[in-house]
Amino acid sequence: MADFITKRSEDYSKWYNDLVINADLAENSAVRGCMVIKPYGYSIWEKMHDELDRRFKETGHKNAYFPIFIPKSFFSREAEHVKGFAKECAVVTHYRLKNSEDGKDIVVDENAKLEEELIVRPTSETIIWNTYKNWIRSYRDLPILVNQWANVVRWEMRTRLFLRTAEFLWQEGHTAHATKEEALEEAQKMLNVYSDFAENVLAIPVLKGVKTPTERFAGALETFCIEAMMQDGKALQAGTSHFLGQNFAKAFDVKFLNKEGKQETVWATSWGVSTRLMGALIMTHSDDNGLVLPPKLAPIHVVIVPIFKKQEELNIISEKVDVIIKKLKAKGLEVKFDDSDQNKPGWKFAQYELQGIPVRLAIGQRDVNNNTIEVFRRDKLEKTSVSMDNIDEYIVNLLDDIQKNMFQKALKYREEHSYKADTYEEFKALIEKGGFVYAPWDGTAETEARIKEETKATIRCIPLNQPLEDGVDMLTGKPSKQRVVFARAY
Amino acid sequence: MADFITKRSEDYSKWYNDLVINADLAENSAVRGCMVIKPYGYSIWEKMHDELDRRFKETGHKNAYFPIFIPKSFFSREAEHVKGFAKECAVVTHYRLKNSEDGKDIVVDENAKLEEELIVRPTSETIIWNTYKNWIRSYRDLPILVNQWANVVRWEMRTRLFLRTAEFLWQEGHTAHATKEEALEEAQKMLNVYSDFAENVLAIPVLKGVKTPTERFAGALETFCIEAMMQDGKALQAGTSHFLGQNFAKAFDVKFLNKEGKQETVWATSWGVSTRLMGALIMTHSDDNGLVLPPKLAPIHVVIVPIFKKQEELNIISEKVDVIIKKLKAKGLEVKFDDSDQNKPGWKFAQYELQGIPVRLAIGQRDVNNNTIEVFRRDKLEKTSVSMDNIDEYIVNLLDDIQKNMFQKALKYREEHSYKADTYEEFKALIEKGGFVYAPWDGTAETEARIKEETKATIRCIPLNQPLEDGVDMLTGKPSKQRVVFARAY
Repeated sequence: MADFITKRSEDYSKWYNDLVINADLAENSAVRGCMVIKPYGYSIWEKMHDELDRRFKETGHKNAYFPIFIPKSFFSREAEHVKGFAKECAVVTHYRLKNSEDGKDIVVDENAKLEEELIVRPTSETIIWNTYKNWIRSYRDLPILVNQWANVVRWEMRTRLFLRTAEFLWQEGHTAHATKEEALEEAQKMLNVYSDFAENVLAIPVLKGVKTPTERFAGALETFCIEAMMQDGKALQAGTSHFLGQNFAKAFDVKFLNKEGKQETVWATSWGVSTRLMGALIMTHSDDNGLVLPPKLAPIHVVIVPIFKKQEELNIISEKVDVIIKKLKAKGLEVKFDDSDQNKPGWKFAQYELQGIPVRLAIGQRDVNNNTIEVFRRDKLEKTSVSMDNIDEYIVNLLDDIQKNMFQKALKYREEHSYKADTYEEFKALIEKGGFVYAPWDGTAETEARIKEETKATIRCIPLNQPLEDGVDMLTGKPSKQRVVFARAY
Repeated sequence: MADFITKRSEDYSKWYNDLVINADLAENSAVRGCMVIKPYGYSIWEKMHDELDRRFKETGHKNAYFPIFIPKSFFSREAEHVKGFAKECAVVTHYRLKNSEDGKDIVVDENAKLEEELIVRPTSETIIWNTYKNWIRSYRDLPILVNQWANVVRWEMRTRLFLRTAEFLWQEGHTAHATKEEALEEAQKMLNVYSDFAENVLAIPVLKGVKTPTERFAGALETFCIEAMMQDGKALQAGTSHFLGQNFAKAFDVKFLNKEGKQETVWATSWGVSTRLMGALIMTHSDDNGLVLPPKLAPIHVVIVPIFKKQEELNIISEKVDVIIKKLKAKGLEVKFDDSDQNKPGWKFAQYELQGIPVRLAIGQRDVNNNTIEVFRRDKLEKTSVSMDNIDEYIVNLLDDIQKNMFQKALKYREEHSYKADTYEEFKALIEKGGFVYAPWDGTAETEARIKEETKATIRCIPLNQPLEDGVDMLTGKPSKQRVVFARAY
């Protein structure tokens, strides 16, 4: 039942947590900050994985796997990287347990202390570039276009299911190139793969942009990002793609012989999205009844609920349903027929709304007589009665419409909550209201920090493909060349 | 080139390592005992993943994800389990690093010591059963049929790529049932899924059996296993499926209300295979030229090498090849056309033999004139010239034949290296020779231990589906009811 989900208007944060728990997506584990991704939640992540993986392979990337542990010293190699990572992390110091002296317990064996501590990877640039050093000799070995699907650990103090957890699942692409141009092109290409995926699969409109130096990935020369707006007006960074320049190649001494036989330093990118996208998905589309899933990500597209009192009625209905299921499966759709008699139709309706199944069909004796079926679309919570003939085509079109409608609805929401501000007073009022605020900025980290300090808003990105516009910084009065996007963020 | 691979007859162990490295499957990393799975090796593992995952889902299982860390105390809960695991393992003791006082280095922050140490999972029974406790209330919540794809860490002292590494990738199924019968049936069902996968996909014949109590999984009441024979006559355990009884349910207090409203303790299974299968695959089929891949696992089925001197020749050949590629792709085959002019055909031939690509096509000007093409099958190292007409059907049939031939060849090898022994002298001689030795055993752990001590042979399994046979233990003269399978093992 959906009635134990707090309403969004009451407490957005509690609504989110209630939904994640009650829709069986994930839960907290016995280990602080680590989540259990439950089967239903994981099946949605698997769909994201498959869609992304296909896109990575279509753009020439291959998967590989690198160690979960990174020697502590590796982090010190790249000066900026160590500042950003390797602080709040899980440190392995020993490799053996033993029985306690009283035999009742097990304790760490102090004789099994590692010479050098190992860090559970928070991200893999260092171990991967240490490996690439051996893979790259000449320009013929380039580019290297590799991706890894893996778990990573960052010891976050305040955690929230999917959005910020100590352990999370992600993919991290790590590529090596002969030229700066090629690396920059790769970073942008993957940004486009992410935005295409976000918009066309997740139905989440995203702003493409670059991060300010303050918000850049530790060790990157440029961080490209996609930023989404949640239903509370807050921003969520949905993916990043980094142009790393030669920083990691220099740190790990990775050079190649160019066509002219001269040694050059390799250029790099890295890019990633994580189970955080589950949070973005939920907070973009879902409502007070529960999850709303775009059809392209739904593990089940259609659920069919029979309305019956007696077994004979169910038998007649089931015959009709069998035909419908066959037709829908032939269209490549996943269908569930819930003919259990343990729960009433009303309970089932609420349950499948909670789980976000895009289309629900209900069929009773009267429908059988009339050759009709009741079709409910989850996104608009609308019911309609249609003929059973061509129900398959009807549903294929309906799913397509749901996918498009969800994107359009989210886009409309974003547009309605995107503002321009030219004075700091305006700006503060708009930030308080929630949404994206396009405002002039003088380009300094000092101004950025002061605005963050005073309003909790950060520069989400300097949008790409946006005209330059001479202006004046709201705070300092210094000249600004372009509006940047401010928001409070997850 | 394959000539830097040591011959099997010279040094089997070195041959294996040379092959893994030179066929670009995996390599050692900077972290002791942890491997890097290279793109080509990973693409084969992905095929294994996909084939297994499909079979798991067809048998009603769903994937989920549980934390990588396990609180130390969890291991003490199940008495047998703690003996087998939680000894040689990676222990996380701290959650923060800090700059050293001189600012030159980073060091462990002693103020960030965990209250309870966390173990990097060597297997997940404990954390999962601690979770199931909250998922199970009544018989309606059962069965739970869940699988996890994950990395695990066991601090092995002597490691070998794929066969025994500190970190490895695997899947672990963990199911919960209302009755003993259902759990036993599940454990056997998954054993059959594994043996079907091993024989029909990996083309590796396997013996199905149960482990002796000594060789059982720590915490299991019965361990079912599939055992394969490598080309040096040694055994390799290729998969295990455990009937765990109520041990973990008791340790984590997992009960359910049955239909009569009475509390009962839940029954469990767990089952897994790992990247170790890559080792089994290599050592079952490969030869002195390199990897030999069964078509069902090959990331590339067919490689096409043009034989040409001038660009015009290549142009003419390429036109023909384009047609062939289209035909082959229409049959669902992965095809690579290597028309680079950097390497000579002979170099390419050796390279693709090393990589184990099942079929190689070579085509030159003369072939174009004759409407023929040279077909090379990797498994038998045989060349033949066939008509270009219907080349697609020819290759589909050939791949099918290769798949079957590889299995038959491995089966023949196993049969030729399977022996019966009735005296200890016979037994020792046969074990020294290599292979499976079927011998009577008195059923005691003492005899088993003495044989292991004296011959390095272990009881690989008590085979299923084998007639009972009254006999006399070779060592003790005590009665034996059935022959068991002894071998030296990986």
